[in-house]
Amino acid sequence: MANSAWSDKVLQLLRRMNNFYLAGSCRANCFRFEIDGAQVGWIPPRVAPLLTQYPDVFTPPHGGAVSLVHSLDSYETRSEAVDAVLQTVRQEDSLTCLKGWRDEKYSVMPKFSDPPVMWMERAATSLFGVKRYGVHINGYTVSDSGEVNMWLARRSRTKQTYPGLLDNLAAGGLAAGVGIQHTLVKECQEEACIPAAIAEKARPVSTVSYTYEEEEGVFAESQFVFDLKLPPEFKPRIGDGEVQDFYLLPIDKVKELLATDDFKPNCAMVVLDFLIRHSFIEPDTELYYQEFVEGLHQTL
Amino acid sequence: MANSAWSDKVLQLLRRMNNFYLAGSCRANCFRFEIDGAQVGWIPPRVAPLLTQYPDVFTPPHGGAVSLVHSLDSYETRSEAVDAVLQTVRQEDSLTCLKGWRDEKYSVMPKFSDPPVMWMERAATSLFGVKRYGVHINGYTVSDSGEVNMWLARRSRTKQTYPGLLDNLAAGGLAAGVGIQHTLVKECQEEACIPAAIAEKARPVSTVSYTYEEEEGVFAESQFVFDLKLPPEFKPRIGDGEVQDFYLLPIDKVKELLATDDFKPNCAMVVLDFLIRHSFIEPDTELYYQEFVEGLHQTL
Repeated sequence: MANSAWSDKVLQLLRRMNNFYLAGSCRANCFRFEIDGAQVGWIPPRVAPLLTQYPDVFTPPHGGAVSLVHSLDSYETRSEAVDAVLQTVRQEDSLTCLKGWRDEKYSVMPKFSDPPVMWMERAATSLFGVKRYGVHINGYTVSDSGEVNMWLARRSRTKQTYPGLLDNLAAGGLAAGVGIQHTLVKECQEEACIPAAIAEKARPVSTVSYTYEEEEGVFAESQFVFDLKLPPEFKPRIGDGEVQDFYLLPIDKVKELLATDDFKPNCAMVVLDFLIRHSFIEPDTELYYQEFVEGLHQTL
Repeated sequence: MANSAWSDKVLQLLRRMNNFYLAGSCRANCFRFEIDGAQVGWIPPRVAPLLTQYPDVFTPPHGGAVSLVHSLDSYETRSEAVDAVLQTVRQEDSLTCLKGWRDEKYSVMPKFSDPPVMWMERAATSLFGVKRYGVHINGYTVSDSGEVNMWLARRSRTKQTYPGLLDNLAAGGLAAGVGIQHTLVKECQEEACIPAAIAEKARPVSTVSYTYEEEEGVFAESQFVFDLKLPPEFKPRIGDGEVQDFYLLPIDKVKELLATDDFKPNCAMVVLDFLIRHSFIEPDTELYYQEFVEGLHQTL
């Protein structure tokens, strides 16, 4: 039987990363964020009064929803009007998350398969509970005897989010208009100095999706997951300074770390998905096997 | 870009297999089936009046729930009392699903990780929306050049459910008290004459979970999924007569069949999960990639 303290800790991680849909979350008090009649996010109760101070852009709450005003009827006009509001709010310095302004445009759409209806500054997306998409790469090696080791990164202590925590080999958010494979190759190059010829061998295998609330807002995210089998002699190197160190660790060690607070939570989920797909967790011995798989793939 | 007619058809399959949680399902009119205060299923509106004719076993609907009476306070007493009712109802011949009585005991519990609170005849579980668990095995071969082929079974025309449709290499329900690995080896042996020494090489990789309603009731199911890489020369053989034929097909052909009505729907889901994990579907070209993954792993 698997170690039940480990299993409990992992289950808690999955629950915390999906706490927006648990009883007692702010969801009942959130406003749907609607554009052209379709929901594209959730606005937390403390954010709504702030937005409705800009009646040229946001409608007052109505039927549980806050919308963009009807006259903002194109991708560009919506994006620019909302951006202008956010730039103003940012000056007022009242919202912590806007201090992490990145000048990165994220697409806003009801579902990933829908056409984008506007772009939004990345740092603001949690104020609107807008879905965010990204790419995470599991880097691993297989020895001649079949032993699997996994590359983990330790985030720089100067990163604005989750400084100093363990991360996947490389990862990054999907900016508006940029492809998934393109993002993967770029992040591998920038964060870990992995040449394109190697990064392109990464194989798409899954998505990991979850919605959690924190003080800064609502985080509804889905990560496109790739496995990259690296040659045993290959070593990632520190690139743009987002990472301070890389470690090649045996799977047992990775599994152990997964249940500690040393891991950035969504990266721990991506590793858990790897452990399940690669049969390092077995359903006869892991009581929560079925709950683990469900918890990794919640509907956005 | 992927074929969009194919993608639409697959998305429809996933929606149909999760229709219990869509607007317009019978869910709003179902009664929670509760044992000892914990929900273990959903009783469809037309089934409840039938059960409450047995007040020694079932309570009248109260607060949206039908429960077992309090005096049935052990695994054995509950199982026997419900079985006695079902045997009587079965004689009356009013419920189609009981014509498929199998004398197979399934465990009843709130979640897979909870201790069973009773057993129930397999054919009756949909009348109570009790969660059912099973094992499905993807059998495949990889040629020297890396080409992947998949073994599919065609169900016997005399099977009581889904006769004549395509199925995974082997599959079976998890009976009360029987292990997952044990079920896998048994089903491989019985259905496809795969020796234990080969079947034991199957690797656990995922679960596929879904809840749908049909005339016969509510089907809340999770399948433990295994991949079994077979030697190219190995051929499964018809065993207990549940299968009429086995085919070894190129992945493109399997993918094409997935979007036809020739597949047992939950087996098509298991194959879709295989195609995603083995990178035969790519997120840059499959618009519904993210929705496919979510649709395969719905919370029971």
